[in-house]
Amino acid sequence: MIKIGIVGGTGYTGVELLRLLATHPHAEVLQITSRSEAGRAVSELYGNLRGHFDLDFSEPDPQRLADCDLVFFATPNGTAMQMAPELLTQGVRVIDLAADFRLRDPALWAQWYGMQHACPGLLEEAVYGLPELNRAQIREARLVANPGCYPTAMALGFLPLIEHDLVDRENLVADCKSGVSGAGRAASVGTLMGEVGESFKAYAVDGHRHQPEIRQTLIGVGGQAVGLVFVPHLVPMIRGIHATLYARLVTPASDLQALFESRYVDEPFVDVLPPGSHPETRGVRGVNHCRIALHRPQQGDTAVVLSVIDNLTKGAAGQAIQNMNLMFGMDETCGLEQVALLP
Amino acid sequence: MIKIGIVGGTGYTGVELLRLLATHPHAEVLQITSRSEAGRAVSELYGNLRGHFDLDFSEPDPQRLADCDLVFFATPNGTAMQMAPELLTQGVRVIDLAADFRLRDPALWAQWYGMQHACPGLLEEAVYGLPELNRAQIREARLVANPGCYPTAMALGFLPLIEHDLVDRENLVADCKSGVSGAGRAASVGTLMGEVGESFKAYAVDGHRHQPEIRQTLIGVGGQAVGLVFVPHLVPMIRGIHATLYARLVTPASDLQALFESRYVDEPFVDVLPPGSHPETRGVRGVNHCRIALHRPQQGDTAVVLSVIDNLTKGAAGQAIQNMNLMFGMDETCGLEQVALLP
Amino acid sequence: MIKIGIVGGTGYTGVELLRLLATHPHAEVLQITSRSEAGRAVSELYGNLRGHFDLDFSEPDPQRLADCDLVFFATPNGTAMQMAPELLTQGVRVIDLAADFRLRDPALWAQWYGMQHACPGLLEEAVYGLPELNRAQIREARLVANPGCYPTAMALGFLPLIEHDLVDRENLVADCKSGVSGAGRAASVGTLMGEVGESFKAYAVDGHRHQPEIRQTLIGVGGQAVGLVFVPHLVPMIRGIHATLYARLVTPASDLQALFESRYVDEPFVDVLPPGSHPETRGVRGVNHCRIALHRPQQGDTAVVLSVIDNLTKGAAGQAIQNMNLMFGMDETCGLEQVALLP
Amino acid sequence: MIKIGIVGGTGYTGVELLRLLATHPHAEVLQITSRSEAGRAVSELYGNLRGHFDLDFSEPDPQRLADCDLVFFATPNGTAMQMAPELLTQGVRVIDLAADFRLRDPALWAQWYGMQHACPGLLEEAVYGLPELNRAQIREARLVANPGCYPTAMALGFLPLIEHDLVDRENLVADCKSGVSGAGRAASVGTLMGEVGESFKAYAVDGHRHQPEIRQTLIGVGGQAVGLVFVPHLVPMIRGIHATLYARLVTPASDLQALFESRYVDEPFVDVLPPGSHPETRGVRGVNHCRIALHRPQQGDTAVVLSVIDNLTKGAAGQAIQNMNLMFGMDETCGLEQVALLP
Repeated sequence: MIKIGIVGGTGYTGVELLRLLATHPHAEVLQITSRSEAGRAVSELYGNLRGHFDLDFSEPDPQRLADCDLVFFATPNGTAMQMAPELLTQGVRVIDLAADFRLRDPALWAQWYGMQHACPGLLEEAVYGLPELNRAQIREARLVANPGCYPTAMALGFLPLIEHDLVDRENLVADCKSGVSGAGRAASVGTLMGEVGESFKAYAVDGHRHQPEIRQTLIGVGGQAVGLVFVPHLVPMIRGIHATLYARLVTPASDLQALFESRYVDEPFVDVLPPGSHPETRGVRGVNHCRIALHRPQQGDTAVVLSVIDNLTKGAAGQAIQNMNLMFGMDETCGLEQVALLP
Repeated sequence: MIKIGIVGGTGYTGVELLRLLATHPHAEVLQITSRSEAGRAVSELYGNLRGHFDLDFSEPDPQRLADCDLVFFATPNGTAMQMAPELLTQGVRVIDLAADFRLRDPALWAQWYGMQHACPGLLEEAVYGLPELNRAQIREARLVANPGCYPTAMALGFLPLIEHDLVDRENLVADCKSGVSGAGRAASVGTLMGEVGESFKAYAVDGHRHQPEIRQTLIGVGGQAVGLVFVPHLVPMIRGIHATLYARLVTPASDLQALFESRYVDEPFVDVLPPGSHPETRGVRGVNHCRIALHRPQQGDTAVVLSVIDNLTKGAAGQAIQNMNLMFGMDETCGLEQVALLP
Repeated sequence: MIKIGIVGGTGYTGVELLRLLATHPHAEVLQITSRSEAGRAVSELYGNLRGHFDLDFSEPDPQRLADCDLVFFATPNGTAMQMAPELLTQGVRVIDLAADFRLRDPALWAQWYGMQHACPGLLEEAVYGLPELNRAQIREARLVANPGCYPTAMALGFLPLIEHDLVDRENLVADCKSGVSGAGRAASVGTLMGEVGESFKAYAVDGHRHQPEIRQTLIGVGGQAVGLVFVPHLVPMIRGIHATLYARLVTPASDLQALFESRYVDEPFVDVLPPGSHPETRGVRGVNHCRIALHRPQQGDTAVVLSVIDNLTKGAAGQAIQNMNLMFGMDETCGLEQVALLP
Repeated sequence: MIKIGIVGGTGYTGVELLRLLATHPHAEVLQITSRSEAGRAVSELYGNLRGHFDLDFSEPDPQRLADCDLVFFATPNGTAMQMAPELLTQGVRVIDLAADFRLRDPALWAQWYGMQHACPGLLEEAVYGLPELNRAQIREARLVANPGCYPTAMALGFLPLIEHDLVDRENLVADCKSGVSGAGRAASVGTLMGEVGESFKAYAVDGHRHQPEIRQTLIGVGGQAVGLVFVPHLVPMIRGIHATLYARLVTPASDLQALFESRYVDEPFVDVLPPGSHPETRGVRGVNHCRIALHRPQQGDTAVVLSVIDNLTKGAAGQAIQNMNLMFGMDETCGLEQVALLP
């Protein structure tokens, strides 16, 4: 059994990690930390875990974490970079579900996250944990930066187009929509049901932290500059991301359907739907899959890619476990075979 | 592997059966029938089943059903009673998720369901499939009447009180609330999101078909007449039932908490919460558990029992699989170990 | 024009007051206070008020408030009792939408609200602002205690039964359900959409502050002790209260329908529905009406009263304006003629 | 008083018309037709109208309709074109809320709506009822084609850009999101709450009937060909449309904010928000306003226009009444001064 520690387990990515680990056959959660809830039973805070975990939240204890094989950070941005270096030194592998190790450039990181990076020397080593792109490196990684939710949905939708140089990469548009759990479980007026229920809006149109992240990924793939307009929106539902991606085709129309199917044929968690499909976010609720559909409206020169994930699963905790499986030589789908809850 | 047939699989109980059977280690779905969707892939209608079933809906075919060990009826009321007798004759066991075999009195059945019963002779034999009440008989049953969703939530909340003769059984009140999936997947103005979203109402206050069913159960347990006012309400959510039960205590206050804990200590799917709790329907979303909390407001003589289930799982398909497990000698929890999806 | 001040206008009752006052022909809002939002335009915080108010939030200023004819307190409990005495002295009339003046007994108030009352001498004078009960006194009142949302829905449903001594008043049950706006607009984990969306639960079963309030009302009407079990629940919707009331009939069955119709025939805001009806909360969304339907399931001896209001309108701001209309000699319905938004 | 007839009043645009007409000071509804509900009281079907209308649905009666000054068609596509010619002949003016008179080219209409047009000769005369574009013609019109909901939101967001020739009109993108009431009130599996609640999806990506409509409008304004990719999505909420519009700026960056403010300065129902804003659909719930915000992410050359309306109000019934006001010489805002319901 892999010995697991979770730092900061009271948020939605924390409870999602626990939900998935509860039925994972080769992982055992040794400890889960929370300063605010120390001493409280995990199953008291999260009723869905009753009967699955006999564990209390505890104060972070470096020594006990050092006994783990792997530590997940489900903390706010800026925490993992404080604790990860020592854990790595002690031979513990680390997956950060926050953003501390996602950007390679510490100056860019500081600009978007509003603080200096505490261990810029680790940014080079950290592997961006998108298995569909970096599977080999993840297997060997000590430190994995788990991707953001929006970047996961966008990257899987754009990758085949960029890899094959099929589109005008200067003029990409990503119109993305997320359920409210993406904003986390902190007390906040902005995500009260009275504020976000029965309403829809865009936010952060002038700049969202996931933009430099997806740009870094697309530039890394294509080797060239990328111009991307990314507009996130808030949907009155709890889980799910729907990315609607627009790209101008620059080469004579190739068969996008075949291209995507071929690109993802061996990917256990990317599912290219039949032509004409419209994936629903509920179709991946609680599971680690990304569903993709391809369209060329009116046979024009704009490709429209629809890409859906569950922001807490493939967009966070599920992908983290997929990465864990890779890092520890297990079947990549181990513990991730659930069926989406529908309706 | 138990060979399974499902008759009428296009509704919400059908897809829930398939979701649970997809990961059941000892069951194999041989066929699933639907007249309206015959020929269509199951995974096309229900995107969540993509990759889990390579099966098309088919016309009901008595011969192929006769090859099954067990047939589930997930049909409208009145269908199972037409087909069950022949299947039973051929040695196929049957679980009806509709109401055809729930009431023992054919005249009462005809009164509430508006048609004559097609095989009244089987009503005596049919076992009411509430394992917490009839486990031994279910193990031996050829024909199981899977309980209604409301009656399941009500029965589990009332049973200990009635069994111990603690309350005035002439004046029980059950104020119950259900998500909209309880109304099924048929096209209907009344369950459009535009009609039921962002609103709450009672319905069928003057008489609901689940009332004779729960009365029969409570009378069977207590051996005496029962007076019960049952008021169902519609909640603007998809899954979940919350029963709020009121009963006047007639014996000097016993320890209700201990009583319930003792009654359900060995039940794998009934979870009595600590004193002072308020179970949420989301805590059992997608799982087969019933959660119960006990209150005596202001230390008065009214017991308030809060009982929650997922109407599609413990209230329908999950309980059906629990019954299947019992009927075929498997571990009762086999295939039902999921963790509820939260948030 | 009546000159209006609003103290504490940033919550949901505050914005509802402003929405209704925006189209009231005889009221003018002179100032609206908020310590946290002082200096910010009202229409910036509440987009729905753009074009209707050219007003900023301001620090509370006793002198400017003293220029008003009427001050509404839309503040947390415990604020109005600090400021009301001086305003009254200066001849300003006061309507408190919080609970400071709802209970006549300062000891009971201290017990439920956890603080000593600052001006117990005013409790005697304060008029409980339920026009259907206290219309004459409200007209003359200097100080009105606007009723709580649940007590409004419960009182209007129970009143005719108690006034005519038709029921066993020792054993009343009120199973009530509220949308989440009743919990206010303060940052709180408990009312995040991620926490309350797609779920249903009871809360405060062992004691809610609205219980002593409704008991006081019912005792006042009936002149005798009242035994009431009140269980509130949280519905995943924004607006609306549905009270399901249960009472044992003690006199030979009178015609409840006629009784209620007669009781409320002249009430502009109480609408008794035809026999067999099930009122929906959406039917009163945004309007000041209470809709009531009467049932006697299976012709038994339990009366079931369904009573719905919008918790922010008849349950708070709308009723406050109804009271204002009475206090200033205007038509009681002035400014309250909206049509509910449906769907 | 203007004498009003409504043909086909049982859908959501019908009840919205009635809601708005209930408080309109110069309009009187003489009759409202519905074959399916003939004889039933309007207030029975729509509880929000209790006390506002003493009117029954009736069979369509040409003679009684001929007594009206104005007839609204709130019918499925293809009905108004059967009845409008005779009404016009009899001097009755007509506003069609369906699509029968929106496209000028009968061949294009037949292609998208799947039937031959019954009165192509009227297409030339019909005025497209977007007051912000065609106010003068609407005043004089006998026959107004009320715009579709998506085209209204898109047109108001694109118009200033096209009129001033600021953008590459060959490559416009309109990513639009609608609440479910846009799909109407017909019984349908696809809009059950169990199907669309807690989920998000695109639909009709390969072609939606509102595309030729908006193209016709934009071509009419710009005088040149237009290339537009329009992708509609379904939001799990009841009311509201949010259009996110993307356009490449071709002229050196002008001041978009000033341009839009200037274009709409005299428009009573178009509200250009301050720079940096993100309009919410709830801010216009139940009112006839369109709110627009302008962005240029990262100061790039893509303009992002956010445009929100209530699909039933400015997107249907509210705009129809705005048109009525113009046609009959009343103040354009008459009866449309409501404040949006928030929260």
